[in-house]
Amino acid sequence: MKSTLIIFFTACLMLLYVDGQAQFESPIPTQAQLDWQNAELVAVFHYDLHVFDGKDYNQAKNRITPIPDYNIFNPTRLDTDQWVKAASDAGFKMAILTATHETGFALYQSDVNPYSLKALNWREGKGDIVRDFVNSCRKHGIQPGIYIGIRWNSFFGVHDFKVLGDDAFAENRQAYYNKMCEGMVEELTSRYGDLAIIWFDGGAHGPEVGGPDVLSIFERNQPNGIFYHNTQRADIRWGGSESGTVPYPSWGTYPFPYSHATNGEVVFKNDFQLLKEGDPNGKYYMPAMSDAPLRGFNGGHEWFWEPNHEKYIYPLDRLMDMYYKSVGHNTSLILGLTPNAEGLLPEADVRRLKEWGDEIKRRFSSPLAETSGAGNKFIIKLKEKATINHIVLQEDIRQGERVRAFLLEGKTSTGWKTIFEGSVIGHKFIHAFDDLELKALRLRIDNAIGEPQIKSISLYQVE
Amino acid sequence: MKSTLIIFFTACLMLLYVDGQAQFESPIPTQAQLDWQNAELVAVFHYDLHVFDGKDYNQAKNRITPIPDYNIFNPTRLDTDQWVKAASDAGFKMAILTATHETGFALYQSDVNPYSLKALNWREGKGDIVRDFVNSCRKHGIQPGIYIGIRWNSFFGVHDFKVLGDDAFAENRQAYYNKMCEGMVEELTSRYGDLAIIWFDGGAHGPEVGGPDVLSIFERNQPNGIFYHNTQRADIRWGGSESGTVPYPSWGTYPFPYSHATNGEVVFKNDFQLLKEGDPNGKYYMPAMSDAPLRGFNGGHEWFWEPNHEKYIYPLDRLMDMYYKSVGHNTSLILGLTPNAEGLLPEADVRRLKEWGDEIKRRFSSPLAETSGAGNKFIIKLKEKATINHIVLQEDIRQGERVRAFLLEGKTSTGWKTIFEGSVIGHKFIHAFDDLELKALRLRIDNAIGEPQIKSISLYQVE
Repeated sequence: MKSTLIIFFTACLMLLYVDGQAQFESPIPTQAQLDWQNAELVAVFHYDLHVFDGKDYNQAKNRITPIPDYNIFNPTRLDTDQWVKAASDAGFKMAILTATHETGFALYQSDVNPYSLKALNWREGKGDIVRDFVNSCRKHGIQPGIYIGIRWNSFFGVHDFKVLGDDAFAENRQAYYNKMCEGMVEELTSRYGDLAIIWFDGGAHGPEVGGPDVLSIFERNQPNGIFYHNTQRADIRWGGSESGTVPYPSWGTYPFPYSHATNGEVVFKNDFQLLKEGDPNGKYYMPAMSDAPLRGFNGGHEWFWEPNHEKYIYPLDRLMDMYYKSVGHNTSLILGLTPNAEGLLPEADVRRLKEWGDEIKRRFSSPLAETSGAGNKFIIKLKEKATINHIVLQEDIRQGERVRAFLLEGKTSTGWKTIFEGSVIGHKFIHAFDDLELKALRLRIDNAIGEPQIKSISLYQVE
Repeated sequence: MKSTLIIFFTACLMLLYVDGQAQFESPIPTQAQLDWQNAELVAVFHYDLHVFDGKDYNQAKNRITPIPDYNIFNPTRLDTDQWVKAASDAGFKMAILTATHETGFALYQSDVNPYSLKALNWREGKGDIVRDFVNSCRKHGIQPGIYIGIRWNSFFGVHDFKVLGDDAFAENRQAYYNKMCEGMVEELTSRYGDLAIIWFDGGAHGPEVGGPDVLSIFERNQPNGIFYHNTQRADIRWGGSESGTVPYPSWGTYPFPYSHATNGEVVFKNDFQLLKEGDPNGKYYMPAMSDAPLRGFNGGHEWFWEPNHEKYIYPLDRLMDMYYKSVGHNTSLILGLTPNAEGLLPEADVRRLKEWGDEIKRRFSSPLAETSGAGNKFIIKLKEKATINHIVLQEDIRQGERVRAFLLEGKTSTGWKTIFEGSVIGHKFIHAFDDLELKALRLRIDNAIGEPQIKSISLYQVE
């Protein structure tokens, strides 16, 4: 009896082992990643000294040219409530502020970076725009995040992480700069409560490449936030362009725990193909983002405000197209917004955001029909024939991206007709198509990792 | 008749011309230079971030190593009145503060250098030690001066005037740094009223060598001050050592309008001989200074305070010797004083200064006899025989250093006896010698440029 039992348990363990080896389990997101994907629309506000200089921003030149007079920074009507309300009114759920960008100037009361609001005459050196911004976010129910640029610092003399010079003095200043960066990260991650995301633009190369150790500080102070990104870790990934779109399919999984801070030979080929598409067999949950500035139309591409550049604001149809190819392609859309030298988001931008948010609501707030559940096959029967031109699919990504191949069919007066053959669904897949008169819709999942968990299938008639 | 007149005038013009060629006129000082020499004792207070770091100052290392945390600067008991009163009580007439030294950190509310008191938590970023200091000087009847260090900046990455690196970025930062320096000079020369001196330590290389143009700013804002120094101008000159002494003779005139910012091949030879001695035929009035830190004894040489280094405070006899070889050698003595991390001049230093001032007063406040006047020969007859061991000579240097060679003789019981054969008198010459019983003293000037103008001959009996 005893030996039989042992044989039985051993067999069980072997089965479990074989199962563990053989079955790929789709990685599941952290709560922070879920929040990130549920946000769908994320605003990033860029604000820095050169907003006030009256000159067109030239990134390459600015990176190697300190702003002559930092006291030009004087936003006499600063109102972060107005910024955040504009984003909130448009349906944004998350917003990020550049606490430092490439000048190195810090928009808060830093105790480690003297090149900060403390140096200004503005508000008698007592201004803290990061605090104002975070407060405004909380007031408007928006999750705040902070962008920290440490790769460039035109004031201190840092180019692509490296302090200028190559002697002992430069080494000492590099060590000092790294400490300063760590100090800023400590301040920014500890002073403003829970943050949805800390965004190191251009990455935050760590000690292994002579940079600061910011990851451990983030992990200590913001264990529930999104970390983006360094050579060890990225919780989201860049979507490979600044067009505000990703191609379809864009999988939320990725083969490396970091996105593109290293292994350029893999990531950078074919126009960032891996970043854009991800990898359905990737072991790491790391959804892509789609990023673009609102002022990216008509030859413009402006992360910062410039006077009289309203012509670059995307028209509504382009923003809707962007919405379909970002949110509708399983990514969050990061939209760059540009507060002006007065300290306000310009009225033209505010209006366009409102129009856009209204249009998204108009199209998607009233589905004609909706269903959800677990399984491989779903049918929505309409009470009566209806004109359909949008379908929105969502997986319950808390359980991972399980769907690998699916088919959408509509029952027309002449029988079942293929509407779309797809692969990834993920957080959201939006399919827009020419009007079809349908009596029913069928979703068939032909390939999946485990049982598909469909959070929502919804049908829309958009006029 | 007409031609006779022409010949007469021509002859006159020729005579004038010959006269102008032949006669050397001793250069005369500006009012600022007069004030400087009349001050005789000038305190220079060094204060910077590393006073607070608890480590021994190592200039070479500090120059290439930024101070890790500038918020260590926290002088909880700062009292510039106490500093200045200590100097005033000791007889000092002028005092200088390092507004910036080699860290680059500015002890005031700069609008162009963020690495300043604005960056600190101390006094909520509102401290202005330059203002405190200048106010204390005016309160105690001391002429204030400001020391500005721009040759080194360990924070910004400046070494011997040059910003680190050698690419376009470095060039841009150099241009920025130069502007920052000009901005600081503008602030420091315009915000604090009339200043006795602006002291650029290590010089202020001008635009001709890629540096800032500080001279024109000084000349506009402080036309009545001492400028020390750059490649164009120096109103005083370094005395060639930091021993607090110069050799005898040390002429107050110099062959160049600048001291040692250029022409190193002439100035730096023979252990700075030209700086020490000057040149009796020099066309420029430029008296030497003697500089030393009070804490320069016993192997120490400390311009900045360090904890528990009272052992380096010069004893009284060494200070008196220094006084004879500086003030008594026609130079002003610049004494370095070191406020501590609490913000006070240490008690031991204050006591020594007081002792020293008292001793100077004891020796020199009551001459046994005194005379003055113009001419080549002076006799002081004593009412009765007296023991003399100190003679102090002063020219009226408003009319230049005229005396080139002089003889001091004393009438003893056995007749006239040579006491000293000298060359320069200038602002002050002190001669100390073994006790002599004298009935009279004779000063004979054997060589002079123009008629000697003797401001004072005084005799002392020091016990």
